[in-house]
Amino acid sequence: MDKILMGPQTLIYPMPVLLVGANVYDKPNFMAVAWSGIANGAPPMISVAIRHNRYTHKGIRQNLTFSVNVPSTDMVRETDYCGITHGSKANKVEVCRFKVFYGKLDNAPLIEQCPINLECKVVHILDLGSHSLIVGRIEETHISGSCLTDGKPDANKIKPLTYTTSPADQYLALGEVVAKAFSIGKELKKRG
Amino acid sequence: MDKILMGPQTLIYPMPVLLVGANVYDKPNFMAVAWSGIANGAPPMISVAIRHNRYTHKGIRQNLTFSVNVPSTDMVRETDYCGITHGSKANKVEVCRFKVFYGKLDNAPLIEQCPINLECKVVHILDLGSHSLIVGRIEETHISGSCLTDGKPDANKIKPLTYTTSPADQYLALGEVVAKAFSIGKELKKRG
Repeated sequence: MDKILMGPQTLIYPMPVLLVGANVYDKPNFMAVAWSGIANGAPPMISVAIRHNRYTHKGIRQNLTFSVNVPSTDMVRETDYCGITHGSKANKVEVCRFKVFYGKLDNAPLIEQCPINLECKVVHILDLGSHSLIVGRIEETHISGSCLTDGKPDANKIKPLTYTTSPADQYLALGEVVAKAFSIGKELKKRG
Repeated sequence: MDKILMGPQTLIYPMPVLLVGANVYDKPNFMAVAWSGIANGAPPMISVAIRHNRYTHKGIRQNLTFSVNVPSTDMVRETDYCGITHGSKANKVEVCRFKVFYGKLDNAPLIEQCPINLECKVVHILDLGSHSLIVGRIEETHISGSCLTDGKPDANKIKPLTYTTSPADQYLALGEVVAKAFSIGKELKKRG
């Protein structure tokens, strides 16, 4: 068998890149997050894992709300900047020229330039070690009208980023369609 | 502002596709999961959201262990099959011709054909509504030797799948490199 042991590893496969937002001392701040997850279907929930010392973490604890903004490939510079800069040391909104707006929740800052924005209310915070796993109920979803096709979100217009650490720390675009889901697997049903 | 309200939504951006495994009544079973997440850095943890009625869910509760297997694009048929078939009604391992092996944990089944395999011990189960959010500590990582470049995992050899619901339910390959992470954002530091 061709297997090598690597010890416990995270981020060994590519993850979506998100900008998580919170008001910290009443001012909007955003950080880049690759450590997220979908947590529940009904009601819809999302999870984000954030280091205790992050500025955004402080804001999420202050308000018990946060936002999840999906940047597109043309925002890769701003996204990376939000990942390598501490919110206490720079006004990221100003540097990135983000247009911030608010939706249903009045303290979860949203980025107009991001094609998708989720407003979330915290329902659980698990302290797991280096990070808190923050689970939020999605209260509202905003999508840029220009990213819809026939009224439905279109990934080809949203152009989200994925992050991989291997072979190098890189942001990738979405690739080609490999197959139709809930469909190609039916070919194996004959075998069963 | 060009924004449309869509109500609370999950899966509005593409997610990695994983095969989550568990022994159910001592027999290996696998399901396709797009609702996963990275939950913690140190110690490394991962989360998976699984419907209560799934067969794999039963196995995870029986053993308090599970596996996460990363399928490559050439396993898209098997992966989709594991998503559309209930483990109580078919022997998925047999149909998919998976070679199952065990690592450090003796009851978290791993798929040899998948380039990456994580062995996990359950540390939390949160019942969030339709799904349980299961948080597992990664105990060991296995990678196929053929997917390494200079001893490091190489996404170009692993060829993972992402799943999107929009514009249609599809599996996608990884795309082109957009930019170097922890690097391109520095260009904005001058502005700060």
